[in-house]
Amino acid sequence: MIEFATPPADKKSLEEGLTFSPRFDAAGLVTAVVTDAGDGTVLMVAHMNAEALALTLETGVAHYWSRSRNTLWKKGETSGNFQHVVDVRTDCDQDALWLRVKVAGHDATCHTGRRSCFYRTVVAAGGRVRLASDGSEPQFDAQKLSK
Amino acid sequence: MIEFATPPADKKSLEEGLTFSPRFDAAGLVTAVVTDAGDGTVLMVAHMNAEALALTLETGVAHYWSRSRNTLWKKGETSGNFQHVVDVRTDCDQDALWLRVKVAGHDATCHTGRRSCFYRTVVAAGGRVRLASDGSEPQFDAQKLSK
Repeated sequence: MIEFATPPADKKSLEEGLTFSPRFDAAGLVTAVVTDAGDGTVLMVAHMNAEALALTLETGVAHYWSRSRNTLWKKGETSGNFQHVVDVRTDCDQDALWLRVKVAGHDATCHTGRRSCFYRTVVAAGGRVRLASDGSEPQFDAQKLSK
Repeated sequence: MIEFATPPADKKSLEEGLTFSPRFDAAGLVTAVVTDAGDGTVLMVAHMNAEALALTLETGVAHYWSRSRNTLWKKGETSGNFQHVVDVRTDCDQDALWLRVKVAGHDATCHTGRRSCFYRTVVAAGGRVRLASDGSEPQFDAQKLSK
């Protein structure tokens, strides 16, 4: 299993160096933003612990840490909608990752069956705020699959 | 100031409804992913409290909560690189936001002066991992500006 370096105390090394030293938070997690490698749509925001990150890098298939189920989570294991990783980037202070992926199966990432988790727009007017659907529909019947 | 609804206990309302009820975490924050409205590049990952989110929606210019400085942060106030918000989306369980923005000034979002904070790729091979620069250079001398 890949092991990760301890983040350096020196800010310049962290930001300008070429040592990968992800800054896991107090819960042992980094934030991962996942976009479609084809058109750049943001598909989801998830979290990874060291094991999920190592498995993702070793297998080329995205793994996460499920905070709701408190378990390692190979995305697509139930639905077949695996995420094949095209590349992984880290940000300046190495506490966030950006994965560009190609989604297999139904091309659906959201557990609601939709392609992206971001299917509602926030609309503010006259001091009030509401959501508007972008019209995207489930690509498959996610309820038929056990979670 | 815009006020936000309390998240419903009912999962279906949260995920399929049109009431915006952001799920701020224990620190009062939601995660915000920021992409360039033109080409979809992920520019940064940041955090917003209720005030930053309300100001963003009311003014159309992105505001965040700086966890390192523990203060409200109008992005670009020092550098002139304001983020003009094209749209804001929320995800299925309303604990993350996706902002599409047009960046003013030097078209640079990262405090290092680069366009995006994600300027390094994670490269894994033979059980080892390192970073590779994508070659992006600072768009301006960020060091000349006081932080």
